[in-house]
Amino acid sequence: MPGSIIDFSANINPLGPPLRIKERWSGFFEGVMHYPDPHAVELTKAIAEKEALPMASVLVGNGGAEIIMLVASILTDRKVLIIQPAFAEYEQACLAAGCEVDFHQLDAPDWQLDVARLIPRLREYDAVFLCTPNNPTGVSFERGAVMELISECQKADCLVVIDEAFYDFTEDAFTYAPLINRFPHLLVLRSMTKIFAIPGLRLGYLLAESNIIKTVKSYKPHWSVNQVALEVGRICLEEEAYISETREYIQSQKQKLSRFYRELGVTVSDSTVNFYLLKDETLSLFPFLLKRGIVPRHTDNFPGVDGMWLRFAVKDERDNEALMEGVRQWKRQGSAL
Amino acid sequence: MPGSIIDFSANINPLGPPLRIKERWSGFFEGVMHYPDPHAVELTKAIAEKEALPMASVLVGNGGAEIIMLVASILTDRKVLIIQPAFAEYEQACLAAGCEVDFHQLDAPDWQLDVARLIPRLREYDAVFLCTPNNPTGVSFERGAVMELISECQKADCLVVIDEAFYDFTEDAFTYAPLINRFPHLLVLRSMTKIFAIPGLRLGYLLAESNIIKTVKSYKPHWSVNQVALEVGRICLEEEAYISETREYIQSQKQKLSRFYRELGVTVSDSTVNFYLLKDETLSLFPFLLKRGIVPRHTDNFPGVDGMWLRFAVKDERDNEALMEGVRQWKRQGSAL
Repeated sequence: MPGSIIDFSANINPLGPPLRIKERWSGFFEGVMHYPDPHAVELTKAIAEKEALPMASVLVGNGGAEIIMLVASILTDRKVLIIQPAFAEYEQACLAAGCEVDFHQLDAPDWQLDVARLIPRLREYDAVFLCTPNNPTGVSFERGAVMELISECQKADCLVVIDEAFYDFTEDAFTYAPLINRFPHLLVLRSMTKIFAIPGLRLGYLLAESNIIKTVKSYKPHWSVNQVALEVGRICLEEEAYISETREYIQSQKQKLSRFYRELGVTVSDSTVNFYLLKDETLSLFPFLLKRGIVPRHTDNFPGVDGMWLRFAVKDERDNEALMEGVRQWKRQGSAL
Repeated sequence: MPGSIIDFSANINPLGPPLRIKERWSGFFEGVMHYPDPHAVELTKAIAEKEALPMASVLVGNGGAEIIMLVASILTDRKVLIIQPAFAEYEQACLAAGCEVDFHQLDAPDWQLDVARLIPRLREYDAVFLCTPNNPTGVSFERGAVMELISECQKADCLVVIDEAFYDFTEDAFTYAPLINRFPHLLVLRSMTKIFAIPGLRLGYLLAESNIIKTVKSYKPHWSVNQVALEVGRICLEEEAYISETREYIQSQKQKLSRFYRELGVTVSDSTVNFYLLKDETLSLFPFLLKRGIVPRHTDNFPGVDGMWLRFAVKDERDNEALMEGVRQWKRQGSAL
């Protein structure tokens, strides 16, 4: 058994939560004793301002997972298409809602969107799920292709659900959210737990046309977002500088990692965010690292990726170096066999 | 405008959260940075031990409201009966789930369960909702009648959902939960936010037969219970002495309030818990108190009670005295008119 564990499986900001959260933590105790605002008016307003959308286009939720479940609820018994590889929650939530679920499989090693093959399928479905930047690959889909998908979904009367849980980690934080004004079939999902390293508190939101928000909200339990998350969320929204700092840190760490993998002849995905896939057809890297206390994310439940690739978070410098050392040893051992 | 506000509308433990929560608050910050256990294994285990039920009969949720929404989800498109007056969430959740909702109305001023009239109706329904101790009346239904309802629901193949959100406040903390072993149609809802004064954190649970728990859980978003709530919940479960202290405090306050209302000739409900209804057919007490900074809970959305009664939480001594003084002035003014 290894003496210590480094967990590369959770895609959380390696800098941790913004400093102000820790500094103001004792003040959040008071909020424990009162019911949270069930409509999260203050936070909704702050998000609407940031996104330049009306408040009626914003729904704050108990983490991205609740938002996914709520979106699935409005699709009860409908037919949905999930573009894979993707976060397993879309499928689970849609199945729980009694949806008929089909898949559109993208191919390694670039996993880009093949719009020509995808578009003819849209008319069969009530909704299509797309995760960009993609989890688990880290790839951002080519923008023209996504735009075309959004526009074709509108024509096909098919909702298009774009999960942007990791968009803040990309170099220019590009988002499809402003298109909601033009395409009322577009739903954009956001998470605040990754970029602000607060997965224990749960916080996410949905951006969509106001009638969709209204319907989705009718399925939401009262007070589902706790008061600590509401207060922390408002502070986080002011942390623009922290996001830039995170982005720069991640980019500089990824440059080191990329150079290392390239020199070692290891294939990794073309990630734009704070995690990436690493190819290992021998299936030996996972147990090799585990024995050394380094925990990758297996990809067994990511169809089209399964087993052949491992997912790693970009962590802090020390942890990333420990990982590189582990991969170096594994390569050396492999060559020796 | 009054200088200060005393809120009698939220039925929260007037002693506040257990002292240990505040003492250990700084230690909960660490939990913010990690994903909560989606299966809440530790807390589930502690609840199962306390309730003397198997772990498979316990589902921890993001407050009672999430549990109600999840229970409604397993009733999608079914026919349900709500025994009224009752917490408005049952109806809202069932309507969101597409249920056909009927009501069984109990009558003032004792609102007791009329089993003879109720039982013949059961075969028409897939589920019946009962809140005991009842919100908003504070009345605990006669046990024999509830037992008969449970047993008849079993015969009628009708689920019976008993919301015990306030059971800890009663003198002997009587619960129907042990009957789950004999009656697999019984679901018992619990809240931890009222007795431990942590509504801002959200925490509740469902007790039921393991197959029901499994189905309900399939609708639950991953990680819906935040890490702070999970940690606080485990501490709360050890606070048996705190619950006794709360119970004694509430009973002694209620004795003073009862004596006062009786002497003043004001009718109140026969409450067994930390809130009660006060009758005012003149509809003048609500605005009278509001002007003095005392906020009752209106009962407009409690059918069968609407308007004619106001709900008040039993708060701490000083607040209860302020309320009594307000009611005394109102009575005096009324006589002067």
